[in-house]
Amino acid sequence: MTPVLVLSGVNLGRLGKREPAVYGHMTYAQLVAEVERTAAELAVAVDCRQTDDEATMIGWLHEAADTGAAVVLNPGAWTHYSYALRDAAAALTGPLIEVHLSQVAAREPFRHVSVIGPVATGTITGLGAESYLLALRALASRLSKSV
Amino acid sequence: MTPVLVLSGVNLGRLGKREPAVYGHMTYAQLVAEVERTAAELAVAVDCRQTDDEATMIGWLHEAADTGAAVVLNPGAWTHYSYALRDAAAALTGPLIEVHLSQVAAREPFRHVSVIGPVATGTITGLGAESYLLALRALASRLSKSV
Amino acid sequence: MTPVLVLSGVNLGRLGKREPAVYGHMTYAQLVAEVERTAAELAVAVDCRQTDDEATMIGWLHEAADTGAAVVLNPGAWTHYSYALRDAAAALTGPLIEVHLSQVAAREPFRHVSVIGPVATGTITGLGAESYLLALRALASRLSKSV
Amino acid sequence: MTPVLVLSGVNLGRLGKREPAVYGHMTYAQLVAEVERTAAELAVAVDCRQTDDEATMIGWLHEAADTGAAVVLNPGAWTHYSYALRDAAAALTGPLIEVHLSQVAAREPFRHVSVIGPVATGTITGLGAESYLLALRALASRLSKSV
Amino acid sequence: MTPVLVLSGVNLGRLGKREPAVYGHMTYAQLVAEVERTAAELAVAVDCRQTDDEATMIGWLHEAADTGAAVVLNPGAWTHYSYALRDAAAALTGPLIEVHLSQVAAREPFRHVSVIGPVATGTITGLGAESYLLALRALASRLSKSV
Amino acid sequence: MTPVLVLSGVNLGRLGKREPAVYGHMTYAQLVAEVERTAAELAVAVDCRQTDDEATMIGWLHEAADTGAAVVLNPGAWTHYSYALRDAAAALTGPLIEVHLSQVAAREPFRHVSVIGPVATGTITGLGAESYLLALRALASRLSKSV
Amino acid sequence: MTPVLVLSGVNLGRLGKREPAVYGHMTYAQLVAEVERTAAELAVAVDCRQTDDEATMIGWLHEAADTGAAVVLNPGAWTHYSYALRDAAAALTGPLIEVHLSQVAAREPFRHVSVIGPVATGTITGLGAESYLLALRALASRLSKSV
Amino acid sequence: MTPVLVLSGVNLGRLGKREPAVYGHMTYAQLVAEVERTAAELAVAVDCRQTDDEATMIGWLHEAADTGAAVVLNPGAWTHYSYALRDAAAALTGPLIEVHLSQVAAREPFRHVSVIGPVATGTITGLGAESYLLALRALASRLSKSV
Amino acid sequence: MTPVLVLSGVNLGRLGKREPAVYGHMTYAQLVAEVERTAAELAVAVDCRQTDDEATMIGWLHEAADTGAAVVLNPGAWTHYSYALRDAAAALTGPLIEVHLSQVAAREPFRHVSVIGPVATGTITGLGAESYLLALRALASRLSKSV
Amino acid sequence: MTPVLVLSGVNLGRLGKREPAVYGHMTYAQLVAEVERTAAELAVAVDCRQTDDEATMIGWLHEAADTGAAVVLNPGAWTHYSYALRDAAAALTGPLIEVHLSQVAAREPFRHVSVIGPVATGTITGLGAESYLLALRALASRLSKSV
Amino acid sequence: MTPVLVLSGVNLGRLGKREPAVYGHMTYAQLVAEVERTAAELAVAVDCRQTDDEATMIGWLHEAADTGAAVVLNPGAWTHYSYALRDAAAALTGPLIEVHLSQVAAREPFRHVSVIGPVATGTITGLGAESYLLALRALASRLSKSV
Amino acid sequence: MTPVLVLSGVNLGRLGKREPAVYGHMTYAQLVAEVERTAAELAVAVDCRQTDDEATMIGWLHEAADTGAAVVLNPGAWTHYSYALRDAAAALTGPLIEVHLSQVAAREPFRHVSVIGPVATGTITGLGAESYLLALRALASRLSKSV
Repeated sequence: MTPVLVLSGVNLGRLGKREPAVYGHMTYAQLVAEVERTAAELAVAVDCRQTDDEATMIGWLHEAADTGAAVVLNPGAWTHYSYALRDAAAALTGPLIEVHLSQVAAREPFRHVSVIGPVATGTITGLGAESYLLALRALASRLSKSV
Repeated sequence: MTPVLVLSGVNLGRLGKREPAVYGHMTYAQLVAEVERTAAELAVAVDCRQTDDEATMIGWLHEAADTGAAVVLNPGAWTHYSYALRDAAAALTGPLIEVHLSQVAAREPFRHVSVIGPVATGTITGLGAESYLLALRALASRLSKSV
Repeated sequence: MTPVLVLSGVNLGRLGKREPAVYGHMTYAQLVAEVERTAAELAVAVDCRQTDDEATMIGWLHEAADTGAAVVLNPGAWTHYSYALRDAAAALTGPLIEVHLSQVAAREPFRHVSVIGPVATGTITGLGAESYLLALRALASRLSKSV
Repeated sequence: MTPVLVLSGVNLGRLGKREPAVYGHMTYAQLVAEVERTAAELAVAVDCRQTDDEATMIGWLHEAADTGAAVVLNPGAWTHYSYALRDAAAALTGPLIEVHLSQVAAREPFRHVSVIGPVATGTITGLGAESYLLALRALASRLSKSV
Repeated sequence: MTPVLVLSGVNLGRLGKREPAVYGHMTYAQLVAEVERTAAELAVAVDCRQTDDEATMIGWLHEAADTGAAVVLNPGAWTHYSYALRDAAAALTGPLIEVHLSQVAAREPFRHVSVIGPVATGTITGLGAESYLLALRALASRLSKSV
Repeated sequence: MTPVLVLSGVNLGRLGKREPAVYGHMTYAQLVAEVERTAAELAVAVDCRQTDDEATMIGWLHEAADTGAAVVLNPGAWTHYSYALRDAAAALTGPLIEVHLSQVAAREPFRHVSVIGPVATGTITGLGAESYLLALRALASRLSKSV
Repeated sequence: MTPVLVLSGVNLGRLGKREPAVYGHMTYAQLVAEVERTAAELAVAVDCRQTDDEATMIGWLHEAADTGAAVVLNPGAWTHYSYALRDAAAALTGPLIEVHLSQVAAREPFRHVSVIGPVATGTITGLGAESYLLALRALASRLSKSV
Repeated sequence: MTPVLVLSGVNLGRLGKREPAVYGHMTYAQLVAEVERTAAELAVAVDCRQTDDEATMIGWLHEAADTGAAVVLNPGAWTHYSYALRDAAAALTGPLIEVHLSQVAAREPFRHVSVIGPVATGTITGLGAESYLLALRALASRLSKSV
Repeated sequence: MTPVLVLSGVNLGRLGKREPAVYGHMTYAQLVAEVERTAAELAVAVDCRQTDDEATMIGWLHEAADTGAAVVLNPGAWTHYSYALRDAAAALTGPLIEVHLSQVAAREPFRHVSVIGPVATGTITGLGAESYLLALRALASRLSKSV
Repeated sequence: MTPVLVLSGVNLGRLGKREPAVYGHMTYAQLVAEVERTAAELAVAVDCRQTDDEATMIGWLHEAADTGAAVVLNPGAWTHYSYALRDAAAALTGPLIEVHLSQVAAREPFRHVSVIGPVATGTITGLGAESYLLALRALASRLSKSV
Repeated sequence: MTPVLVLSGVNLGRLGKREPAVYGHMTYAQLVAEVERTAAELAVAVDCRQTDDEATMIGWLHEAADTGAAVVLNPGAWTHYSYALRDAAAALTGPLIEVHLSQVAAREPFRHVSVIGPVATGTITGLGAESYLLALRALASRLSKSV
Repeated sequence: MTPVLVLSGVNLGRLGKREPAVYGHMTYAQLVAEVERTAAELAVAVDCRQTDDEATMIGWLHEAADTGAAVVLNPGAWTHYSYALRDAAAALTGPLIEVHLSQVAAREPFRHVSVIGPVATGTITGLGAESYLLALRALASRLSKSV
């Protein structure tokens, strides 16, 4: 079965170093480890990737559109303006869950708008690494039902 | 230990009857049953309540502020304008997760604004009953860590 | 046959006392009498109710959704912001006619927006008690055609 | 006694041919026949006219201002921008009821604004041909009271 | 003589517990005691009430409209959107002073708008309990002049 | 020498009958007489015309573009939205003075915008018939200088 | 076969005379000649018409709706506000291509909005007379495919 | 009889030196001479003053309010934001004509708004020194009528 | 002890003469007398000043910042745009109460915005001279508590 | 002679797979084949390229600026926000035609804005692959004229 | 050679006393000393002036327009609304550099707008006293090049 | 010591070729030479880099965040929308100065907004290559003080 793609966008490789007051002290590697532990627990295959390059991220979404993979996507700051990413996400054939570590609704006004949200199946924000874990769980639950 | 309050607001007692194309065929009673089954699985006490009366909901939030209970809140249409609810929610001492059954970001523009979001710990949207279950799970995870 | 529900919202019980320059000197009781006289003339059963409590009004709309009753609704000031009422109205299975005594388009800007209008079958404004009577007549005409 | 002017504006001569999903299958001639039947029933004289020419419509309103005739006006798409029509309507000495066949509040945003509404006595929308008939009835009721 | 109604709205019963950094440590009971002490000093009868229920508050305003009572009103978060309350307030026959404990102009943008202000005689903000006491004093001064 | 065109637009033939509180009691014929008297005094030829038909007005502006005539233009309500008129006016080769009888800046917000203003040489508002007379005088002064 | 209607709106008869820096030196007659030459080359019948009268243009669109003719439409300044034209265009049964001689996106802000665009099959701007020729070619290509 | 006050505001003493492409080569002294020549011709007393100091200008308006003098006012850049000036102008008892040398409607967007316009009797723009002369003439005409 | 500065801004020296329908018939001198009487009653020293010159007012605020004086400030029309005044007020070390004679929220939209409000301790509006007296009383109460 | 660059941006390599209801079933390879067939017919050299990488696209535009090549550009979703692309396009020395397959004016509001349009020579939308072919034809026509 | 004018506007004489968290502890006198030390180092004559009076500042800009002096201008809070200052600055004949001590882009929204910026040669913000010194250096560099 | 990073973004490698009327004739290589000459003069190490690739630029900012380097950043057109860049810049530990060659405030409205400004220490605009040199000087001054 196609693994769930867990995709993290721009600046997310900097977790733990970048504004820890906002994003916490967990590093990206630790986040991946948590995601993989939960995936194992749920018996779901995952493939975690991170990039600061928009074209690379778009290529991964194209790949998911071809394979029908379910996707967990944290678009980072692209969330707020990248219609390029939105169009790639809109073409997915599997479910897409948008996640954010911080509670974007409680931050600067520009973060209140997500151009990805309208083409996502669901959105989970504000729960730190747990946002990813819950998204994975929701997809696992959907996948098990659609079997 | 104080049970988690799982609060559903206006019109949510109508689940299953109301716009099933948007909200699905599950009734409110079935939703509660699912929440209680997950709570049992997580060994978390829950107290599920629904009301169409804003003052009653505000009273429940005051109660939670006094007991320090964690809260899962689906404010229904109050989400978009009830600053009264927001002020009550802002005064909570435990964590608050805002949930929505539908992907509000994909619906009418007025549903894109949540006046509750900025005072919530996190938000989960678009995943049907699963939105509630994940919220409960996130709270259980927080509660177990804070023990 | 289910009577037509003729529902009047917040502050409308004050008719005759409240800003007579805007709303005229007819009291709510007189309005009901006029509605009932027209109903009798049209051989339509009506059930006239008024409340200042939003939850009560929402309950009446839930009741109408269950019975399939046709509804005449004057939401008063709730017109301009109560998405809670809108969601309840959107779930009606019978026709809904929104009425206003005054010509809201000629008053303060906040009165130019109706959040109920987009989910109503039709809207009648500015004709005083006649707004109610015409709405009733339109429903009677619809009901007689659908027999 | 001056007949009630029942004026239909731009594109309304196309009824039945134009977007029947929105406007229904009744032709303009059939609409006029319905209006005349109701007028006869109410013992009110009517004069039904339609034009796609703004200046002609404005001339009819000038005529009504001179005679004091009551007016039923469906301004079609002029509703949303023709301040020229508005100024002509504002100068009427008899009552003016604005009517629309469709529920404009439920359509594209540009149709939510009426520049005529603020100078009309009342407005009736969304009830198809019935919008005209009710307007006529309201005027008949006013005329009979003012005798 | 009709006592001055001193009405406190939603969440104000929580004073002292709710966000003391914003609202201070005085409880609602202590606030009432201060108001009553000042009333005694001014030889003015007062009737202090608090509710979280919008319909109840609207009923009190209807009562004041009937008795002609002067009103001190702290609408809490209803200030910013409740046109229902505004319409009830607009129908008062005695003077109305809107009060706020905090300096709303210095807080979140949504608190900068009062839908009550345009129908109030005056507004006093930012002075804590003193806002109420000054409002009472202003009404006493008006009442003594109008004797 | 080409006479100055003094063009009055939609509804201006109704002067004296239309909203005399706003526009005064002078009729259009009297206005023309005043303009002609001033023209005689200034030894300037004038040609006064009025139309409620936008295409006719546009044709007159085309004529003025061909002859190089100076133009006094009161566009009436077309002022606020007729980009068709604006484009015709922008192509004039002689000077253009926009006039209004009333002080449009002191009326409804929609009257504060003139789409003609940016392509006019000058604008005179609020002075009744005097607005026309001064415009004529300004053009006479320009014409005498350019001889 | 029904000829393609090539319709030019307000002020376009003035080509060559009107703002040549923007619209070039080609006259309307020359434009028609170019269109007819291309039509001949494509073996497509065309019928070129121009009017400054909105009602006339609307009548032509009604005619096209009846015959099913394909339409090339340059609405001139009506582009930016004439919902009357839009409604007539929306009722066409054949394809409609909106054309502009100038690059409207590079001019004043009011020219950036087309109320016709949303109901057109396609839009071609900025290419002078070529805009018309390409539109004709696109329609010819469509017509030949649909044979 | 009180002379007409002809008041020029901020930066207008710089005429002739300041942006001659916009304001022309006439100096302020020459402007005054032209105004005085016209005043003599009209047999009207004038008092021309210029200041860059807002408080001084406000004092002159207070003086005019006391004497009932008619006022010609070119507020310069204060036009666009000085509500202080507006309040002083609103208290005038004689007529007030706002003048501008340039056609402000054709310049930067911030110049399209006049906070003085709504409290002026009339406004004259775009005609250079002639704007002042026409204003004086309009006031002379009013004064002679009111004798 | 430093006297309380009671500062009145632009046009307020005109009280009694200026728009008495809005501001009442009391003159500025009478207002000062009322303030001084209340000050005496409260055993508080006051220093009442008025100026139409923004720089003078700013100087007084600088003086108050140096002495730590409490300030009552009626900024008049500067309220709505003078960020210069706001910055001077923001630097005060003692409490600042903003007052307005009229209920600004009930007047023109531009008066609904106060740029001073966010840096004031409190605001009192709509109560005529009483606005000043209550402000003084509030400061006296604060000063007595801080002794 | 420099070939015409036919540049397709982000997600356009997905044609045929991506939202065929919007973009049709033709693949990118088929689109290129059609463009090349038309180019051959017009005896114009073309160089068709596609990339999902913004920097690559900008590099191609820099290349065209150096060679003076004419450009057909479909910027995909970059259309709506990439000022980086706009600045690169603004520096072109040859003509630039912006093309879109779909009628962007008929889709979501964010697609109604093109930041590229103001720096393009012309724009062609809504005609599927034909949009490209017409653009090529327009450039061929320009190139042949400029020889 | 004309000295460079280094002009500081409203409230800047309060440096060191006013909001030191924002503006630092350096006094205005110390700032002048730093500017003069740098001027000496650059062998440029400077003339440092500060005023809280807008008319005085405008007079200094008029003086600079006459002498052709280069200007460093910190307009303080006038930055955000004083079109009077802008018009005076626009008439300068020498270069103008706008400076701010704080990073205005990081403060309240009203500080993000500069009405002076569009008429300045350059702008330097956020670097404390260094903002002035760099501006002086930029002007010195320009002056030495233009010799 | 870590060299100062002098980073130039999208399209800046085209200096001298791109819109010389706006950006001047200096090439990027010449700009670097000037920066290096000034750096040598200031005895500061610099590392000048340019890229059209957003991800590369973001990587450089990550590098600077790790080394604590001071940064001069000209983000080119990314300035106006790249929240990705902003988030990377916000995580810098050393000072950041944003520079622009042209006076962005005097150009198109979209250039008036900088999403980078709020996270920069300071901003320098409009001074051509001098903008870079002054930024370097400001950083050198800071670095020498912090030694």
